[in-house]
Amino acid sequence: MSLVVVGTMAYDSVKTPFGQRDRALGGSATYFSMSSSFFTQVNLVAVVGEDFDSKDLQTLQGQGVDISGVEKANGKSFHWKGEYGYDLSEAKTLDTQLNVLMGFDPKLPDGYRKSNYLFLANIDPKLQQKVLDQMDKPRLVACDTMNFWISGALDELKKTLARVDILIINEGEARMLAGATNLQKAAKTIRGMGPSTVIIKRGEYGALLFHEDEIFSAPAYPLEDVFDPTGAGDTFAGGFMGHIARMNQPKLTATILRQAIVMGSVMASFTVEDFSIDRLRRLKREEIADRFRFFKSLTHFDDLTEVV
Amino acid sequence: MSLVVVGTMAYDSVKTPFGQRDRALGGSATYFSMSSSFFTQVNLVAVVGEDFDSKDLQTLQGQGVDISGVEKANGKSFHWKGEYGYDLSEAKTLDTQLNVLMGFDPKLPDGYRKSNYLFLANIDPKLQQKVLDQMDKPRLVACDTMNFWISGALDELKKTLARVDILIINEGEARMLAGATNLQKAAKTIRGMGPSTVIIKRGEYGALLFHEDEIFSAPAYPLEDVFDPTGAGDTFAGGFMGHIARMNQPKLTATILRQAIVMGSVMASFTVEDFSIDRLRRLKREEIADRFRFFKSLTHFDDLTEVV
Repeated sequence: MSLVVVGTMAYDSVKTPFGQRDRALGGSATYFSMSSSFFTQVNLVAVVGEDFDSKDLQTLQGQGVDISGVEKANGKSFHWKGEYGYDLSEAKTLDTQLNVLMGFDPKLPDGYRKSNYLFLANIDPKLQQKVLDQMDKPRLVACDTMNFWISGALDELKKTLARVDILIINEGEARMLAGATNLQKAAKTIRGMGPSTVIIKRGEYGALLFHEDEIFSAPAYPLEDVFDPTGAGDTFAGGFMGHIARMNQPKLTATILRQAIVMGSVMASFTVEDFSIDRLRRLKREEIADRFRFFKSLTHFDDLTEVV
Repeated sequence: MSLVVVGTMAYDSVKTPFGQRDRALGGSATYFSMSSSFFTQVNLVAVVGEDFDSKDLQTLQGQGVDISGVEKANGKSFHWKGEYGYDLSEAKTLDTQLNVLMGFDPKLPDGYRKSNYLFLANIDPKLQQKVLDQMDKPRLVACDTMNFWISGALDELKKTLARVDILIINEGEARMLAGATNLQKAAKTIRGMGPSTVIIKRGEYGALLFHEDEIFSAPAYPLEDVFDPTGAGDTFAGGFMGHIARMNQPKLTATILRQAIVMGSVMASFTVEDFSIDRLRRLKREEIADRFRFFKSLTHFDDLTEVV
């Protein structure tokens, strides 16, 4: 079943200890749609500037992504410049030029409105709500956010959260949003704000899922070389939502949710192996299947007939 | 099969955001032996001072621990004073008084020497070797160490590592020992120093096992309240070695190793719920079994019939 994503498309200038790339294709919606396109029909909503290379849109189209919701506006595309140190856990932002993102007013093509699944990537919560207003009773809505909105637009963010089923959020931002250090307590507080399910991303430590009275913990794929972590979180969300949309069940079960978290982790593990979406561009379906099986071997242990 | 542990017995003064305790029973060998005593016969080697309360030794005896290897020396017992902030991930050491530990010269009672299993807790690598010299072909030897020995006695530590099967080490210290940020690379380097198996403890993020060409990742138990993290690592090692000794197989299999890591995580999750060994003192076998099953539900996910 089709999946709508609203977020950013950008050109990123990124430096890591392993190299650097100028004006590499990036943005939350780009990573998300590349990732989810392996699993389902993806309908993309974003804004790009006059400088946006049509080849980059063709790349997404080549993956089957519907780009009729991508608006071309006057001005330059969103640009982010950042640098990672050796621990690769946090980017140092050197420059952010919002450009056309300043006037972004997402409009969903008619064909998108009846999609069952919606992902609101990290944008202004007011815009997230505008998108929700245009959807025709989606079955499942997930969103992301960041410290900028938590500290600067908390009331609007809470209005968004009251309308979504799943929040996918970084560890530090979960603590900030909930005002709690302990992640279980943070998840409980956040679930009180609306989302029945909370997913906390912990970078190289994996992800935690809080759903009903269950907790599920998925590790990250142990990579010898993380080349560039940019886009890992959005790629994770893409694999996660892509799997859920592909399964397209009337009710979200714990089984599907758990598999979706693993699939998100699988997809993110590819993205960080190269700059931009380069690894996803050359990704083969067999590689996804292989890595999903690897996650099983990474976490599996046998029951004990007698524990003590 | 019986298990020998050599390490420290101490009185700790600990302050956490949740309370404080003066002269609480602590030390690596104390936590280790309490934890492993649930699974196997434990033979304890340590030194205590004249101030050591005989009731504390009786507590261990009551758990079936053989304390004939505990030497009572002239002087005061080892004392550590530390404080934890809200994140509880690292202790700030306020005071360390080695006292009788300065003259520690571990001597194994004859009855200990034929034990199949040996754990060398974090002490001077020279002493670790002295203990190894006294053992009669143990089937499996594991050890711990810390930054103090890595920076101050690396040559001696390497001599120890060349003689052990398993190194259980903190994340930061693994990086320091190997001179590598990436944990997979660090594990590879450390395995080149001797231990065929490396276990990296990551506190609230769980533990990683590197064994043959496999990696296993176990999460930590998600606790709403970590009361006092002191002793978590040694309790982990106790559950880990205790399970291996209880299974007592001629060859260490991946199945047993993985279960042992989970058992270590289970035991550590109890220790941090209270000061000192208080939680372990009142621990029931059914609670261990329940929490082992919880770890299964925490990490389990179903295979996909069709991945993509």
